[in-house]
Amino acid sequence: MPSPQLAVIGGGQLARMMQQAAIGLGIHIRLLAEAPDVSAAQVVPDHVVGDYTNLDTLRSVVAEAPVVTFDHEHVPPEHLRALQAEGHACRPGPHALLFAQDKAAMRQRLGALGVPCPRNAAISTRADLDQFGYPAVVKTTRGGYDGKGVWVVHTAADADEAFASGRVLLAEELVDFRRELSALVVRSPSGEMASYPVVESRQANGVCAEVVAPAPGLDPTLDAAARGIAERLAAELDVTGILAVELFETADGRLLVNELAMRPHNTGHWTIDGARTSQFENHLRAVLDLPLGPTGARAPWSVMVNILGGSVADLEAQRASVLAVEPDIKIHLYGKPVKAGRKVGHVTAYGDDLDIVTARARRAAAMFTDGAPQS
Amino acid sequence: MPSPQLAVIGGGQLARMMQQAAIGLGIHIRLLAEAPDVSAAQVVPDHVVGDYTNLDTLRSVVAEAPVVTFDHEHVPPEHLRALQAEGHACRPGPHALLFAQDKAAMRQRLGALGVPCPRNAAISTRADLDQFGYPAVVKTTRGGYDGKGVWVVHTAADADEAFASGRVLLAEELVDFRRELSALVVRSPSGEMASYPVVESRQANGVCAEVVAPAPGLDPTLDAAARGIAERLAAELDVTGILAVELFETADGRLLVNELAMRPHNTGHWTIDGARTSQFENHLRAVLDLPLGPTGARAPWSVMVNILGGSVADLEAQRASVLAVEPDIKIHLYGKPVKAGRKVGHVTAYGDDLDIVTARARRAAAMFTDGAPQS
Repeated sequence: MPSPQLAVIGGGQLARMMQQAAIGLGIHIRLLAEAPDVSAAQVVPDHVVGDYTNLDTLRSVVAEAPVVTFDHEHVPPEHLRALQAEGHACRPGPHALLFAQDKAAMRQRLGALGVPCPRNAAISTRADLDQFGYPAVVKTTRGGYDGKGVWVVHTAADADEAFASGRVLLAEELVDFRRELSALVVRSPSGEMASYPVVESRQANGVCAEVVAPAPGLDPTLDAAARGIAERLAAELDVTGILAVELFETADGRLLVNELAMRPHNTGHWTIDGARTSQFENHLRAVLDLPLGPTGARAPWSVMVNILGGSVADLEAQRASVLAVEPDIKIHLYGKPVKAGRKVGHVTAYGDDLDIVTARARRAAAMFTDGAPQS
Repeated sequence: MPSPQLAVIGGGQLARMMQQAAIGLGIHIRLLAEAPDVSAAQVVPDHVVGDYTNLDTLRSVVAEAPVVTFDHEHVPPEHLRALQAEGHACRPGPHALLFAQDKAAMRQRLGALGVPCPRNAAISTRADLDQFGYPAVVKTTRGGYDGKGVWVVHTAADADEAFASGRVLLAEELVDFRRELSALVVRSPSGEMASYPVVESRQANGVCAEVVAPAPGLDPTLDAAARGIAERLAAELDVTGILAVELFETADGRLLVNELAMRPHNTGHWTIDGARTSQFENHLRAVLDLPLGPTGARAPWSVMVNILGGSVADLEAQRASVLAVEPDIKIHLYGKPVKAGRKVGHVTAYGDDLDIVTARARRAAAMFTDGAPQS
């Protein structure tokens, strides 16, 4: 076995899709997987099963790898600093990851940079929340994802669960938004950057449900502004690899930053089939300080729809039915057991007609969730 | 570990690229690899190391897999018949593979079908060759590939090595061809078929060097004829999966079948980046009897150039230089040690201008072979 060029911490679908790109580029990945059968462990032969919060486990995984990157943002920063001190390049590094891990730190830093954000305040008590005012969005500063750790509160009572969580909380303005956008940028340690077309992200129950690339009808000024924010943040925060900036496009035509992620992102999955270089390939190229690939779209429209767990228990058995109805759909299954509402895969369609492309992707995803083709 | 849906016999680059497609489709592959570190074993966790000529080894690999397919055509047919008798679907089956394994059987069958071939004759003695006439191409009926087992003979003495080989030989007319073409078709057990655009294949020293898709300036009548031959052969020979038909386009505008291959083929590698469905994905879909994907090109031109081993010993270290010159090239490295002239990877470029696309692909491949960018 050749020695690994890259250690990837975390065995979810993002690491799995990194491996697809790594195979082509000839990059040998060593993986730290949470369990023997997780998504990426199924496709990365050189993997260690262990706990990413254990420093000695991390050391054993990265031992021969000069560079370390991540499937998620949850590795303790003190461990990353230890690995850095021992000569490993952590990309992104803990000083950048902080702003994807801690929403209060992110809001503070973005405020200092003058990047437009929803009005926000750290809250410790109900009095703080009352003072902030209603309606508001209350979030845990750490560990929330896919709608977890987020509460929309119209009255003090709506915040009971939030305060009962015992977590550090942040209150944010409930933004009157027209839609959600996502701006992806990739950045190398050398400072090279490339930004993907800005996409529209459509959520259902706090989870990304579908992504349209590019965002339909987006004002070119807003497109440039969104890319500019993403590029500026990548540089200011010294991000290496993919930075995803989720934005609100407000009813009155402004952009406000909602969230940051420093890894390949669900709103970039369309790039596998729809862009000249996928976000996964560019993430690998960035963290290994290889020149970046072009980020343009290959088709006028690409639509990605997540496959959420539903009544179909055996996704593999369902493939034939889906492909019979949609032979031109690009299927991405994650090898994860089906649980209600869980992201277990995605599909992408591309083409010239947005309505047709959207219908095809939705139909295929619905068949993986609920069996029958959507009429 | 979930149980395998597909056993793949042989651990070369074709199996490696099948795995890339399998990851997306969620197909669990079990691999029989010739050695622990061969190309596909590096990327397929569930692999057995062993000898594909040993029936018990084959049995252990396919034990839980309902379907078996191949990286190469060298598995003994009697073993495949044994596996079939034990309930495994071999795709393609030994009755079809015979015509990719034995050139004499292939010529006989194609002759019986009336498919145009170079004039040919089985030869046992020098007298047979003298009677066939000169110039001629003398081939071993089995085991030749990439120019090995093939001799162009202008006089009786040129055939010394061929006769010394002790192999069964075939003599064929030395065709006055304008160029070589390749027609790829994919076929399911249910009989569904789809054919890829016919490509031009350019050889150097008997090895495929580059492929242009589609074949530039190909007469639409010849395009249809080539696809028709491939589809007819796939059906008549009952091929499952990819069938590659290599053809001569003669100086006087006819098509003659040169070789057959029943697996993903070097002349189809462009489809990974250049077609709506790659030959690897469609091979998997075919052998698992899933509906096939569309085979159309995604760009006006795609050019694939093989990376042959040369003075560059460390391909991974060379990536940065190649990508600095050609950031939009799609790289496919096979994880094989570099040996002079050995296929160790390929690159693909696509776009609107054939000259530019060709130059880009050649430049990238040359840098992987010899280091310096081709001027």
